[in-house]
Amino acid sequence: MLTADDHAPTAADGGQQPKPVTIALVLYPGFTALDIIGPFEVLAFAPGHDAVFVAAEPGPVTDDTGRCQLIASASLDQVTAPDVVVIGGTLSTKEPDQEVVQWLRRVHPGTTWTTSVCTGAIYLAAAGILDGQDATTHWAWAGELERRGARYTEQRVVERGKVITAAGVSAGIDMALTLLARLHGPEIAMGLQLGIEYDPQPPFDTGSPSKVPPEMVEVVRSQLYTLAAAEPASSK
Amino acid sequence: MLTADDHAPTAADGGQQPKPVTIALVLYPGFTALDIIGPFEVLAFAPGHDAVFVAAEPGPVTDDTGRCQLIASASLDQVTAPDVVVIGGTLSTKEPDQEVVQWLRRVHPGTTWTTSVCTGAIYLAAAGILDGQDATTHWAWAGELERRGARYTEQRVVERGKVITAAGVSAGIDMALTLLARLHGPEIAMGLQLGIEYDPQPPFDTGSPSKVPPEMVEVVRSQLYTLAAAEPASSK
Repeated sequence: MLTADDHAPTAADGGQQPKPVTIALVLYPGFTALDIIGPFEVLAFAPGHDAVFVAAEPGPVTDDTGRCQLIASASLDQVTAPDVVVIGGTLSTKEPDQEVVQWLRRVHPGTTWTTSVCTGAIYLAAAGILDGQDATTHWAWAGELERRGARYTEQRVVERGKVITAAGVSAGIDMALTLLARLHGPEIAMGLQLGIEYDPQPPFDTGSPSKVPPEMVEVVRSQLYTLAAAEPASSK
Repeated sequence: MLTADDHAPTAADGGQQPKPVTIALVLYPGFTALDIIGPFEVLAFAPGHDAVFVAAEPGPVTDDTGRCQLIASASLDQVTAPDVVVIGGTLSTKEPDQEVVQWLRRVHPGTTWTTSVCTGAIYLAAAGILDGQDATTHWAWAGELERRGARYTEQRVVERGKVITAAGVSAGIDMALTLLARLHGPEIAMGLQLGIEYDPQPPFDTGSPSKVPPEMVEVVRSQLYTLAAAEPASSK
């Protein structure tokens, strides 16, 4: 079984951190790729981190477009004591994968930080981790999160105790920088932000429902629900 | 050989676009995952798009952390007429992969848009696509880009003719939204931005060398060059 102790320090840690921080990035069929790769890129290069993609079984896992396959290097059963869990969301109306939910329930008591991006929060809620707690998720799934017992909070990143939830998809980058600052102090996070040149300048300012006309919100909501109900174009 | 015509419309296009737009996302050993997944997430869900990960050979390709493996579904030889090319960067001091450079040189004349993220611009320069042209790349590799014949332009996204280059890593998201607006008009791009809830709120404002003290720039530059010279922790 993989634990933090099983991994040798990486080249990136400069020998300063004897015990790597195991970051478990959870994959399941239909995951949204940017939800998980955003935090991965921020966390994988940080000193002393050991980032591991985990899934029910090792091997390829297909995303919600049916076009992107990421390889899990370890099974959920092999990763019993991650320091940090990152679970991303999915553009799917399916019920959360129960194997993942059970794993979250098992490992959460031992984590330093348990985090989600987008509808990954619905996985945390299904595991009973957000009962009665403030949390965020993708704006179009706020009602679903509440239905599962959390209190939806309209913020980019919500930190409560050791649980950090992020809003939709791209919010995982902001969440991971917040997390990195908690793990190693703000200087490391600031340097990492410079390293990935994260000085966002989107060509439009339409990233939040509060910033666009209500009609656009409803059109996009409808498109998202239609995509969520559809099978990916070339899923396996 | 794969061309745009070989692909059936995806579920996402709603039947509006009879001829899919083939988006070739180029993978090579040592690629930076977020460089390519940022644009992928923006472009893959757009109506009528067919996103394809391509590499020298189909199969897994390992990133520059040694921790992330993405699967290429097609070889470079199979994708002869992509409408859009996206080439991401790498945290590596190696010379650009010659097979990729030759492929870029071959397909570029037929593309609608040829784009890069981060040091992917160095691949475009190596293919002769940026000779004497304004372009951007990761700030720490600006000199290298100039050495290869381009004029480094300190902007997040630089569009010249049908070539769009983006700054480091995370800038690919901004580039892809710009590209999407060019392909289908601003409304589609604005809706997509809302769909991925791209309302960035980084916890710090240190994403550009102009925003931090010179000492931090030099520390991060030195760390990047050290990482670039090192072998990934668990590369194959």
